[in-house]
Amino acid sequence: MTAIPSDDRGFLLGDGLFETVLAARGRPLFLDEHLARLARGCVVLGLPAPDNDAVRRAVDQALARAGLVDARAAVRLTWTAGSGGRGLDRPATLQPRLVATAAAAPAPPGPASLAIVSVRRNQASPASRLKTLAYLDNVLARREARGLGADEAVMLNTAGEVASAAAANLFWLSNGRLCTPALDCGVLDGIARAQVLALAARMGIEAGELRAGPEALAQAEALFLTNSLIGVRAVSRLGDREWSAHPLTSALAAAWATLAASV
Amino acid sequence: MTAIPSDDRGFLLGDGLFETVLAARGRPLFLDEHLARLARGCVVLGLPAPDNDAVRRAVDQALARAGLVDARAAVRLTWTAGSGGRGLDRPATLQPRLVATAAAAPAPPGPASLAIVSVRRNQASPASRLKTLAYLDNVLARREARGLGADEAVMLNTAGEVASAAAANLFWLSNGRLCTPALDCGVLDGIARAQVLALAARMGIEAGELRAGPEALAQAEALFLTNSLIGVRAVSRLGDREWSAHPLTSALAAAWATLAASV
Repeated sequence: MTAIPSDDRGFLLGDGLFETVLAARGRPLFLDEHLARLARGCVVLGLPAPDNDAVRRAVDQALARAGLVDARAAVRLTWTAGSGGRGLDRPATLQPRLVATAAAAPAPPGPASLAIVSVRRNQASPASRLKTLAYLDNVLARREARGLGADEAVMLNTAGEVASAAAANLFWLSNGRLCTPALDCGVLDGIARAQVLALAARMGIEAGELRAGPEALAQAEALFLTNSLIGVRAVSRLGDREWSAHPLTSALAAAWATLAASV
Repeated sequence: MTAIPSDDRGFLLGDGLFETVLAARGRPLFLDEHLARLARGCVVLGLPAPDNDAVRRAVDQALARAGLVDARAAVRLTWTAGSGGRGLDRPATLQPRLVATAAAAPAPPGPASLAIVSVRRNQASPASRLKTLAYLDNVLARREARGLGADEAVMLNTAGEVASAAAANLFWLSNGRLCTPALDCGVLDGIARAQVLALAARMGIEAGELRAGPEALAQAEALFLTNSLIGVRAVSRLGDREWSAHPLTSALAAAWATLAASV
């Protein structure tokens, strides 16, 4: 197990970012997109971006160290503001820290049940659109959803608009149109989210990023989740509302799987 | 330097809590209050609380290890959800991790200049009232304030109400009445905040916890910050508005200093 010093600002304050990258047969999927998102997040946080070649090497080393070069694996990349500073203030010279670890990735799970939780996303913080080390709200949202007997949470933002799941983006189908919350609703700029929007465009499916209340979910013809590890995951239930498999969700899941396999 | 494993959930996700305790001559101040707040936070996060005796020993050891038994020191107590789990879900059996470190505490600084920043506190997350390891919004708020030439940030909540500074609670004097934002505005339940409210009651000063917009600060007769390390710190400026020293702030600062010295 890699050790980090306890004065790391990621540990002390959540001062940093992460990426979770799916790797298959030793090859990280959409790594360029992950690196680009990490670099965008660094601009927002005021951190230097990591050297992309160093990250690529760290991914390879993490897979090798975990003996997962031939497996389906999740690589966790953590980029922190490093050690030092006094309290909230960062040190004058930043020395960010890169940590990469790999673990076996679970097979894509079956359909998910969802519950709307009380913890809300803060669309007034830039962190709500980033994968930051300050992910406690997501932990608490997931925990609340599990307590309600569901697999995943639906998080609203503080304006009461639908934002996302705790660890996935949210899509729904309304009158044949694919809908997902706009990023400024306090939504992570998901790699799978962007890929699914691009796939929909290629497949001639009308799609839009919008603002909507939770009633839009109850009225939807289908609902699904996306993230880099699970790809497209159908939703079977939200509270009392149940859905059976929908051909559009299945088509997008298949298209994603093909895309991911070809990278 | 203490090392922690990189699979600690505090490091990965901000899944944990902290306390910053002032120690003088080897004696931690208001430690019972810090332990009580930590225990209340554990209930909210769904973590077991640490054993108080173990924490007391860890404080002593941290001071001894840092050679700060005779100094003014800040002890940082970190209590994480420990290692394990898959993604956001915690492991079935939690093994929380306690880390205690000590550093020389700066002398109480002079008056602070403030700036209202864009990063807002999420009053719809229980984390906004706790010292959690997910403190990135506070880091970003402080950074923004520094960029505006100020020492500290004034954070509003997503409803536009005044909440707190990035690392302190906020008080102001309005028509001779001491005011501070109510906790459900998304405000840390500060130990110094509670002590100052109790001091004000003992000194016969009318005080109230309320909801207010930022205009209340510009109109105030005096403004000050509180936290466990600085006690009561006067505010000299907020944007264009400047204040000179106010007798009530000085009286509360002196009363705090006496209280802290007597613990």
